[in-house]
Amino acid sequence: MSDNTKTKKLSIISFSGDFDKLVAAFTLASGSAAVNYEVNIFFTFWGLNAVKKKRGRTFLGKGFLARFFGFLMGGINNVPLSRLNFGGASPKLMTYMMRKRNVATLNELVEAAIALNVNLYACEMSMHILGLTKDDFIPEVKGVLGVATFLELSEGGDKLFI
Amino acid sequence: MSDNTKTKKLSIISFSGDFDKLVAAFTLASGSAAVNYEVNIFFTFWGLNAVKKKRGRTFLGKGFLARFFGFLMGGINNVPLSRLNFGGASPKLMTYMMRKRNVATLNELVEAAIALNVNLYACEMSMHILGLTKDDFIPEVKGVLGVATFLELSEGGDKLFI
Amino acid sequence: MSDNTKTKKLSIISFSGDFDKLVAAFTLASGSAAVNYEVNIFFTFWGLNAVKKKRGRTFLGKGFLARFFGFLMGGINNVPLSRLNFGGASPKLMTYMMRKRNVATLNELVEAAIALNVNLYACEMSMHILGLTKDDFIPEVKGVLGVATFLELSEGGDKLFI
Repeated sequence: MSDNTKTKKLSIISFSGDFDKLVAAFTLASGSAAVNYEVNIFFTFWGLNAVKKKRGRTFLGKGFLARFFGFLMGGINNVPLSRLNFGGASPKLMTYMMRKRNVATLNELVEAAIALNVNLYACEMSMHILGLTKDDFIPEVKGVLGVATFLELSEGGDKLFI
Repeated sequence: MSDNTKTKKLSIISFSGDFDKLVAAFTLASGSAAVNYEVNIFFTFWGLNAVKKKRGRTFLGKGFLARFFGFLMGGINNVPLSRLNFGGASPKLMTYMMRKRNVATLNELVEAAIALNVNLYACEMSMHILGLTKDDFIPEVKGVLGVATFLELSEGGDKLFI
Repeated sequence: MSDNTKTKKLSIISFSGDFDKLVAAFTLASGSAAVNYEVNIFFTFWGLNAVKKKRGRTFLGKGFLARFFGFLMGGINNVPLSRLNFGGASPKLMTYMMRKRNVATLNELVEAAIALNVNLYACEMSMHILGLTKDDFIPEVKGVLGVATFLELSEGGDKLFI
């Protein structure tokens, strides 16, 4: 499933659904992919929100961190952003995104990562916990994984929990 | 104290007392142990709550993040869960746990990890800060460590801060 | 810029501005430096607050996590702390710090890290997002980095996202 002989690899466990942490995760992912790292992102718990289809259920999670998501999903008015240049310098776009904090920007972050061949995976267990199926995610999500497969894919590289 | 020649090792610094992050930490720990990783969890700050004895002082921390703990410790009605199958699939139990969010479930998480030989340690400095002693923890906590010993134990393996 | 042949290296991405997480980050950093690790801290987003000059703008971030910073920056009455002994045992000082939770203690944390040759860097992209310049930081911040340079500096060592 993965080429473990590749020397530079970064695997991010994207747990948080906070917009700022997702920005950090995607910035690290795309910036690393841009310098030829193999990059895997494993979306788990609230992080799954980043790869959810925009139509369908609007909110993830009941109670608990729900106010975070209410805030995050807030105004879904799709801001037209041309293209993000991660690992480079698109500060104005980023500032704009941070100020608007809407879902459109998350779409852009995901698109940039996909364009740079960042691998996206969903955590099987948290999908069960949150009552989500593979069909709830964008088609670019490569697979649904458990811990053992995650360990195989990420072996020999750096791991970050964000 | 540890066999550093072992090739696969995961060391988790469990900092957060948030129930969802503890679930993530224990799921990664038990799932990794199940595929023969040496796994160490270093409980620090609010994470120490996960290995506290249930009798005695009910709450950790004064002020600060205390409302988190008030929430976390909430209803202590011990739900009888039979057994958790980490790294596998026990979605219904997990869902139930997430919904109930009580301490009983944390006990189960800890028990599963112990059954899989996950090593549990407590951070010396945060114990001092929070006014806790070794006696406040369940007996399965193997030791009380400072940073230097943590580095020795975790050397050559992956580290995650959760 | 960095000696990548050195075998023991710890690179911390300090993202959170929460006082307790900064304490954890600096404790790990200074404790690791004390046992001869090369230690790099990359301050990003709210973590940048830890290396901001105390004069000038008082608060980082508008809205969003601003209440965190309001809390964090709260009472700026500089408590005279003599010196911190990280990785060792200065529990009483730490307790005092946690109780007072003021900026003075962050200064002390930073000073201890600097005394132990911990390298401090600021994240270029988050500086742009937050509207900060190199001049907003204490002079000990060695440089302003993007993702690619961060990867070079941290290569071959452990990475933690805090």
